[in-house]
Amino acid sequence: MADEATAQIRGPYRKGVERREQIIRSASDVFGELGYIGGSLRTIGDRVGASPATLIQYFGSKEGLLAAVLEDWTKQQSRSSLADDPPGLAYFRALITVTEFHVEHRGLLELFITMAAEATNPGHPARQFIQRRYDTVLAKCIGKLREAVDRGEVAPITDEQIAAEVRILIAVLDGVELQWLLGADIDLPAVVSRHLEQSIANWKTGRTLS
Amino acid sequence: MADEATAQIRGPYRKGVERREQIIRSASDVFGELGYIGGSLRTIGDRVGASPATLIQYFGSKEGLLAAVLEDWTKQQSRSSLADDPPGLAYFRALITVTEFHVEHRGLLELFITMAAEATNPGHPARQFIQRRYDTVLAKCIGKLREAVDRGEVAPITDEQIAAEVRILIAVLDGVELQWLLGADIDLPAVVSRHLEQSIANWKTGRTLS
Repeated sequence: MADEATAQIRGPYRKGVERREQIIRSASDVFGELGYIGGSLRTIGDRVGASPATLIQYFGSKEGLLAAVLEDWTKQQSRSSLADDPPGLAYFRALITVTEFHVEHRGLLELFITMAAEATNPGHPARQFIQRRYDTVLAKCIGKLREAVDRGEVAPITDEQIAAEVRILIAVLDGVELQWLLGADIDLPAVVSRHLEQSIANWKTGRTLS
Repeated sequence: MADEATAQIRGPYRKGVERREQIIRSASDVFGELGYIGGSLRTIGDRVGASPATLIQYFGSKEGLLAAVLEDWTKQQSRSSLADDPPGLAYFRALITVTEFHVEHRGLLELFITMAAEATNPGHPARQFIQRRYDTVLAKCIGKLREAVDRGEVAPITDEQIAAEVRILIAVLDGVELQWLLGADIDLPAVVSRHLEQSIANWKTGRTLS
């Protein structure tokens, strides 16, 4: 939709839209590599031949640029998968496609992990975005696992157990992706898939401790 | 040992040692909060009333200061626990004390997570340190789980399964600690303890998929 809309725009305005997108791409790379605090407007601008003043003109401030980068991240990430929103247990098996997407789009993953680590500082401008992202993903997974219980796909595990299982699952995804980004010699989708199947096996037999 | 040695040193030299330690503490905080790239010598110096030139005088360069910070981190972290090096399965139960230590020393955890996320950039000066740290922790845990197999504390799981289980365990520790740093309303040691017990239960019955 967005691409079609862009294609219909002509002239100087369209050029501005393209320029804006170039800057967002550059900022995504730089924030992922150097962090938000360490990634300067100068560095971001240099990669696309724009001055810091031009960046401010487009985004108002460095925080404004960060907001655009995070919005873009959300858009890119949503292309990854799970668009079909599979029900219950199928949702967790489909999570493997997110990992595969990250292997193909390493920059998106690096940006998220770097922003999340920086946002452990309460004053960080991405903190609220990151917190909301975790809340959204947790709530989604909790809903899906509860659905799996209701559909009889897994044992009747309690809400408390569901919340704990989902939190650990998200920790595993973050943790192994971090190991992979750090150069661990692993087949990332295979590691994640193995863990997902193990978790599902535990859920099916109700082998979750509370 | 180091403290006793410091106490025996007198005069200007001792004052220099104390100053050096002050700067390392400040740098640990600043790198944890703002990252290595974002944490400037100016900011680090300002917190202890020292100029960037003084910092360079003590550590040679910003990278030299980072090396001192990481060395100090290793020393602090080793105070956390596991000093008794419990055998086999007892080692994994003792990991809970590391988490408890991190709750008490949030700054050490924040520094590690921030450096690890930044070091996903191959050119980062902490990359080798972080990679070695992961290698060391992985090797240690693999040895302990193999020991647990040899002692008959768990089912005869294969070396491949052991490696996979340990990788996931470390991912869980990193991942839930990241969630906790981001403000998740969780009892961190309780979440980790629950997961450790669940893993141990799986190992005992050999419920690990390969």
